[in-house]
Amino acid sequence: MIKGILFDLDDTLYNSSEFVEIARREAVKSMIDAGLNIKFEEAMGILNKIIKDKGSNYGKHFDDLVKAVLGRYDPKIITTGIITYHNVKVALLRPYPHTIKTLIELKAMGLKLGVITDGLTIKQWEKLIRLGIHPFFDDVITSEEFGLGKPHLEFFKYGLSRMGLKPEETVYVGDRVDKDIKPAKELGMITVRILKGKYKDMVDNKYSDYTIKSLQELVDIVKNLKQ
Amino acid sequence: MIKGILFDLDDTLYNSSEFVEIARREAVKSMIDAGLNIKFEEAMGILNKIIKDKGSNYGKHFDDLVKAVLGRYDPKIITTGIITYHNVKVALLRPYPHTIKTLIELKAMGLKLGVITDGLTIKQWEKLIRLGIHPFFDDVITSEEFGLGKPHLEFFKYGLSRMGLKPEETVYVGDRVDKDIKPAKELGMITVRILKGKYKDMVDNKYSDYTIKSLQELVDIVKNLKQ
Repeated sequence: MIKGILFDLDDTLYNSSEFVEIARREAVKSMIDAGLNIKFEEAMGILNKIIKDKGSNYGKHFDDLVKAVLGRYDPKIITTGIITYHNVKVALLRPYPHTIKTLIELKAMGLKLGVITDGLTIKQWEKLIRLGIHPFFDDVITSEEFGLGKPHLEFFKYGLSRMGLKPEETVYVGDRVDKDIKPAKELGMITVRILKGKYKDMVDNKYSDYTIKSLQELVDIVKNLKQ
Repeated sequence: MIKGILFDLDDTLYNSSEFVEIARREAVKSMIDAGLNIKFEEAMGILNKIIKDKGSNYGKHFDDLVKAVLGRYDPKIITTGIITYHNVKVALLRPYPHTIKTLIELKAMGLKLGVITDGLTIKQWEKLIRLGIHPFFDDVITSEEFGLGKPHLEFFKYGLSRMGLKPEETVYVGDRVDKDIKPAKELGMITVRILKGKYKDMVDNKYSDYTIKSLQELVDIVKNLKQ
């Protein structure tokens, strides 16, 4: 008997890959306009290396980019990048098509819904609130809260216990085979892989019980599972 | 011979007192709507005490408010407050009337213009960029950069040296007698007090060379001083 669904957030409920790419590119363009004296593609190369080295939650990507290019701290250029990034975020953050309709139907079926996500708690909550979908979720579990993220099985176990769910009565929905679907399957959850974001072409014949292209397909899957 | 003007930022170039008050009130209202179980005026009392105790740049005001009211950390409520505060900031940050026209005229007179302000560098730059007036200023000097703020004379001396200005050739424009006008006068600058913000009713017969109600009055003052 299916009692609940755990969702990944980034690239599962909204287009994170696209938003982040556009926000970074627009931020770099605005920094060049503010005086960062470098060609655009070269700046993107440096920025992507900084993000790869320091991680996406480092918080000083633009500071390091400016220092790498100009050899000094320049608050005007850094702040210009931060503001542009933020403006793009506010403008572009919205759920994938059919997401809200699907969540309404799933709640109407009496299911517990939760989000389990890698990232900083306030940052992930900001996305959910700006996406306007936070009231659908009974709980939101972040790797920052637990101290360990995906694909660690302990993190998924912690998420299930916070939700009061057993693995076999839980559907897991995520986009990444390695970090979402494989550990969820290993714990005994019913796994639904959504083909979205930059990992959508990864092949998997082993861990996904279902593969969907749009979240709305989830409604029929859960209906069949509940019978 | 007047060569430059140093401006205070908050409540001198835009209505900081009003913006901060509205942003805090709206943030608290949204937090109550998100589940902060307390009466509005009581919440504002607690928040104002936290801000008074920890300072305005503390960064965890809403975290502390939620902990004080609920006895626990609640990321949904905290993030709701942060987003509302930010949305109000984006909506309300604009210069006082006549500010941009006045800055255009002052630049056309060949003057160096600078901002000297207490606060965090990125935060003060964010205000200037969102206000759209940052291109008028040859330099922006913050207390965070210097390590010491107003009314310390050293901070004003540091600002003058960054601008390449001597006190006697510099006009200082600010709203506060104690933190702006008094130290500027003591250093030998020509002081212009603008009657704006929450300190506008403070009486001063000693340190203000000029008192203005709107920034545009500055143009005639400087014209006369340059003759």
